[in-house]
Amino acid sequence: MKRRPLPIAFQGARGAFSEEAARRLAGRRAPVLPCERFEDVFRSLKEGRAAGAVVPIENTLAGSVHENYDHLQHFELPIVAETSVRIVHHLMAPKGVPFSKIRQVYSHPVALNQCLDFFARNPQLERTPFYDTAGSVKMIVEEGLMDSAAIASAIAAETYGARILRRSIESDRRNFTRFFLLRTPQYARRHPVRAPRQAQWKTSLVFSTRNVPGALFRALSAFALRDLNLTKIESRPLRGKPWEYLFYLDFLGREDSPNAQNALRHLRETADYLRVLGCYPRGA
Amino acid sequence: MKRRPLPIAFQGARGAFSEEAARRLAGRRAPVLPCERFEDVFRSLKEGRAAGAVVPIENTLAGSVHENYDHLQHFELPIVAETSVRIVHHLMAPKGVPFSKIRQVYSHPVALNQCLDFFARNPQLERTPFYDTAGSVKMIVEEGLMDSAAIASAIAAETYGARILRRSIESDRRNFTRFFLLRTPQYARRHPVRAPRQAQWKTSLVFSTRNVPGALFRALSAFALRDLNLTKIESRPLRGKPWEYLFYLDFLGREDSPNAQNALRHLRETADYLRVLGCYPRGA
Repeated sequence: MKRRPLPIAFQGARGAFSEEAARRLAGRRAPVLPCERFEDVFRSLKEGRAAGAVVPIENTLAGSVHENYDHLQHFELPIVAETSVRIVHHLMAPKGVPFSKIRQVYSHPVALNQCLDFFARNPQLERTPFYDTAGSVKMIVEEGLMDSAAIASAIAAETYGARILRRSIESDRRNFTRFFLLRTPQYARRHPVRAPRQAQWKTSLVFSTRNVPGALFRALSAFALRDLNLTKIESRPLRGKPWEYLFYLDFLGREDSPNAQNALRHLRETADYLRVLGCYPRGA
Repeated sequence: MKRRPLPIAFQGARGAFSEEAARRLAGRRAPVLPCERFEDVFRSLKEGRAAGAVVPIENTLAGSVHENYDHLQHFELPIVAETSVRIVHHLMAPKGVPFSKIRQVYSHPVALNQCLDFFARNPQLERTPFYDTAGSVKMIVEEGLMDSAAIASAIAAETYGARILRRSIESDRRNFTRFFLLRTPQYARRHPVRAPRQAQWKTSLVFSTRNVPGALFRALSAFALRDLNLTKIESRPLRGKPWEYLFYLDFLGREDSPNAQNALRHLRETADYLRVLGCYPRGA
């Protein structure tokens, strides 16, 4: 008898943008495990209840998801793939509720903030924060609220049988969220990531420097002197050392290339702490 | 007849940590203007309804307050002072409510997250997010909730007449928030910031670079080659250019010193965009 494969964990209710990312990264038919909090997503992979974890890491409008940077550092689960999902927000309501009856609009605060032009044109609508975009659709449908709508993805409308009343109400179309697929270290060792020969690769790492003048400059020289292009750098507070920082950095290149190996060796000379978080093909 | 002085705006209800920062930065007896949202704080200074604005910019545990970095960039109100406030969280309830009756605990999500050890020791307590620490005290006292407590500052307890049941319940004592005092450009020009001769100064700026290999390294060389010490660097997404970034940077030094002037001239050679956000004495 074949064992049922373990699911891919993501944060949010069924129909969340993270589920769309999970299906792209782990296959359309992969079973999924919706989790309430980001920490639960990491924990379910760490504790063997999931085969992979999909987490958002940054959004082109809202910026980095800092909590997940902290979890990447803490849980030590390697990044094996990335993808970017275009965020399209639709206004939806339980079937039979017309737009003219809507007074309350539920969604995640980030989604509500990304539709401010729509709310400015419709001052009769009250923005009501909810813990999750897809979860807000589930709630208004299950409770049968007749004066309420939710903002979420088309998949959420389909998942819960809500009707889309207004399409693509986000203020800025250049709204993309970047997601990581994480595996256990054991899985990553047994299943090396493969990609077409011409694919570009990214390596993600975290490091800290001594708090001396020019420390970050010297750290970045390890990459600049070898023409390794940085695509992202992010600072996070270092716990227990007020006003000192960890740096998260992505560069274009394979971790195992001689150039990258030299850069990492060079960085180790000046960094107090250094860990590679993953090496994966650059996403679309 | 003397005109009543304009107030100092801050986000949150009376008794918020921001009010403590406002009093330190603008004087104990300064009138204050509590605002619901950060944007309102900036707007009330911009529109002449406040004489100054006090905003949190980073916390040693939670990291930067990214929304305020975005507002600094947008509103063009100069930073004229900084201070750090130690965050001490107390559990408080309406008078007459004993600890044994408490089931719900209201506070801002960041404050709830900073007391996780306390909640682990007291599993009977349900964490309930509220928009504001001090506002949650106001609410439980005004509603006379008999099974609820709030987490906030000692000043909030005093302001609303709540009784402190458990002191200093934060998990990590190294919890500080850094605040900026902002003025209008006109005010800053008429009242140059003064400090003792031996004071250290900080300059804050924002810049963007072309997306080419080594661009950030070259930008930082403007400071490293002149031994100017960076105390903070932060990246934020650049609106309208997915996956490109603005950098916010603080360095130790006066903007008008020859060394800093040279560094800024050097940085302008490679930066697409550069603006100094303020120059102010380094806070305690």
